[in-house]
Amino acid sequence: MTDSTSGSALAEQTPSAEAIPDALAYLLAGGLASFARLADDAAHAPDLATRVVLSRIAAGELANMDRLERHARDLGCPESDFAALVSDFHGQLSEFDDRAVPRDWWERCVKTYIGYGVVMDVQRELVSRVDEATSDVVVDGLADNGHADYVVATMLPVLEAEPQLAARLALWGRRVVGEALGVASRVVTQNPRLAQLAGVAAPGRRADPEDVATFLGRLSAEHTRRMGRLGLTA
Amino acid sequence: MTDSTSGSALAEQTPSAEAIPDALAYLLAGGLASFARLADDAAHAPDLATRVVLSRIAAGELANMDRLERHARDLGCPESDFAALVSDFHGQLSEFDDRAVPRDWWERCVKTYIGYGVVMDVQRELVSRVDEATSDVVVDGLADNGHADYVVATMLPVLEAEPQLAARLALWGRRVVGEALGVASRVVTQNPRLAQLAGVAAPGRRADPEDVATFLGRLSAEHTRRMGRLGLTA
Repeated sequence: MTDSTSGSALAEQTPSAEAIPDALAYLLAGGLASFARLADDAAHAPDLATRVVLSRIAAGELANMDRLERHARDLGCPESDFAALVSDFHGQLSEFDDRAVPRDWWERCVKTYIGYGVVMDVQRELVSRVDEATSDVVVDGLADNGHADYVVATMLPVLEAEPQLAARLALWGRRVVGEALGVASRVVTQNPRLAQLAGVAAPGRRADPEDVATFLGRLSAEHTRRMGRLGLTA
Repeated sequence: MTDSTSGSALAEQTPSAEAIPDALAYLLAGGLASFARLADDAAHAPDLATRVVLSRIAAGELANMDRLERHARDLGCPESDFAALVSDFHGQLSEFDDRAVPRDWWERCVKTYIGYGVVMDVQRELVSRVDEATSDVVVDGLADNGHADYVVATMLPVLEAEPQLAARLALWGRRVVGEALGVASRVVTQNPRLAQLAGVAAPGRRADPEDVATFLGRLSAEHTRRMGRLGLTA
């Protein structure tokens, strides 16, 4: 979607309707980015059992892709516009992978745990504001894919036994979440339609710094809860 | 499977029956290795459309995994023995990834095209010799996943327009298939049960060099046919 949606089915719908293709594109880009991150984690897994678990979780990230594309098409979003949106969001999300490069397996696990969590939180924020038909399409993709539980189950005993590692990873987590929230902030502020859908901008206006701060505050709270599950202070 | 299968359901079956868990483990390891190779290709794709296609093909490689594991369990193969088999085969298959490192996107495509083809050919060789119940379980995983057609469709016009690139990739293909056949040879000769199933060793004997050559000859013929689809001489 580069500009107007006049003449399409979107124009006849509610104000937030024109942001639906953007939201769908963000969901698809998030799935693709998570697939790549989890597949890369699988390739670096310390043992075959871990590789199998993470490969499966990675593959699951793409399960909802067809439905997202079809719904965008049904809404009248031209295929090339949708692909351009996905490409933009994917580029923004990939920045996260290039920053804060993990030095070992545990830093890698924590980075994916945090980054994946923030991507999912943004997805949930957006989906909570879409119409029911769209919500029906996307809700499967928001289901817990088991990654967080897997990380908590495998890391918690290690962290409890190794306070020095826990301290290092708590520090690492603060650095990683800074990058993740930076990416989330750019995602919802640089695209005007998504900014409006996310509730951080009034129609036709730039994102409001205070609303963005509130939005990021909610993501931070979720992050703090997630770090708590690992026994780490955010 | 470390040693005897006495007392298990396997011992009561046909001579080749004791090799079925090995064959299933090879299939599973092949799927995992192909997943990793295709996901890595997706991560290096020159554009998002290619990334999407390859990510999906990668994810499809794991679709049959549960059935393979369940069938091994149903045959009485202890879970830890099966995991050890998968781990062995996966280690052998991963050697292929570490050798003949591609220098650009096209070399990468050709490497996966060739390596994936050989892995699948070995799978088909093994599956053609298993019992019907096993064949029913594994046949879905042998279905064409679309990778070969995708590579041919995207590369053929490029190769036809760039004879120098075609010449370089033909040379590259010869190097890559040497590595792939080396891996295939080790896979079927180092495991006595698989060697017997593949028809390269008599019961209780080492692999016969002549039978191994015949086996590799069939894989070579398939490879030549595949290179022909790209307009390249093997």
